[in-house]
Amino acid sequence: MTRILGLDPGTETTGFGIIEVIKGVVTLLDYGCIKTERKYSQAQRLSQIRDDLDSIIKAWNPGYAAVEKLFFSKNVKTAMAVSESRGVLMQKLQEENIWTQEYTPNEIKMNICGDGKAEKKSIQKMVQLILKLKEVPTPDDAADALAIALCFSANIQFHNS
Amino acid sequence: MTRILGLDPGTETTGFGIIEVIKGVVTLLDYGCIKTERKYSQAQRLSQIRDDLDSIIKAWNPGYAAVEKLFFSKNVKTAMAVSESRGVLMQKLQEENIWTQEYTPNEIKMNICGDGKAEKKSIQKMVQLILKLKEVPTPDDAADALAIALCFSANIQFHNS
Repeated sequence: MTRILGLDPGTETTGFGIIEVIKGVVTLLDYGCIKTERKYSQAQRLSQIRDDLDSIIKAWNPGYAAVEKLFFSKNVKTAMAVSESRGVLMQKLQEENIWTQEYTPNEIKMNICGDGKAEKKSIQKMVQLILKLKEVPTPDDAADALAIALCFSANIQFHNS
Repeated sequence: MTRILGLDPGTETTGFGIIEVIKGVVTLLDYGCIKTERKYSQAQRLSQIRDDLDSIIKAWNPGYAAVEKLFFSKNVKTAMAVSESRGVLMQKLQEENIWTQEYTPNEIKMNICGDGKAEKKSIQKMVQLILKLKEVPTPDDAADALAIALCFSANIQFHNS
């Protein structure tokens, strides 16, 4: 049994998705968003992100994690704020000894759709198909997090699955 | 009594400086660097930064902190890596309920030298003079962290000092 936590880091919204791989079969366990309030300071938001990630880890006990890597951003201010959030997430995963991989948006698209420039809608549709869901998972950040987790599962050969 | 922790965030080297303000008189308590090894992953480095900050907080019990803010960077990759470190620091300070202010390099220069474009050497000389040290504190990151702490002390009116 292999549980994978996918994370799409942000300051206001951090998407998460948990999937399980048993003998090559992928099952959806949970997905959603860590949402922080605008009235909070950046430091308060970072603390909430850490606390909520802690709750998710305690609830699902994932053995592996996959986190979206910021490849490049024209908006340096946004890139720096999201990187602060990413730093908190990566550190917490390390602290919990969760083996973590990072993927750029292009790598994720290439893995899920076979096209590094695939549209967001195409990715979401593939996530729905792979996980055999009745509808496309929402919101977008949660769907992205599931895509990241699926990217990991497609790339790693597990000994026990 | 007011203890202020100044932090100059980085991935390889995070400078720190601790000063104390008693009745308007500023005294140096400690300064140095959190250094992380190149052979470590970014996540391992972030965890070491968190652990070492924890040790510094436990040793000195600062009531306030001042952290350098990245204002802008032409090198987005470096800016993102340093922001991850900054995120870990800011979150830990928040968790410890340490009241924290952020200053841009220009604000720090303006506060210490009265010139937002002051040279690094001028800042270091002023840090030496204000703290009545025999020599300029080294390395640079530690001197910068002391400048940040001094910037904070110059800006805040303490009730008990």
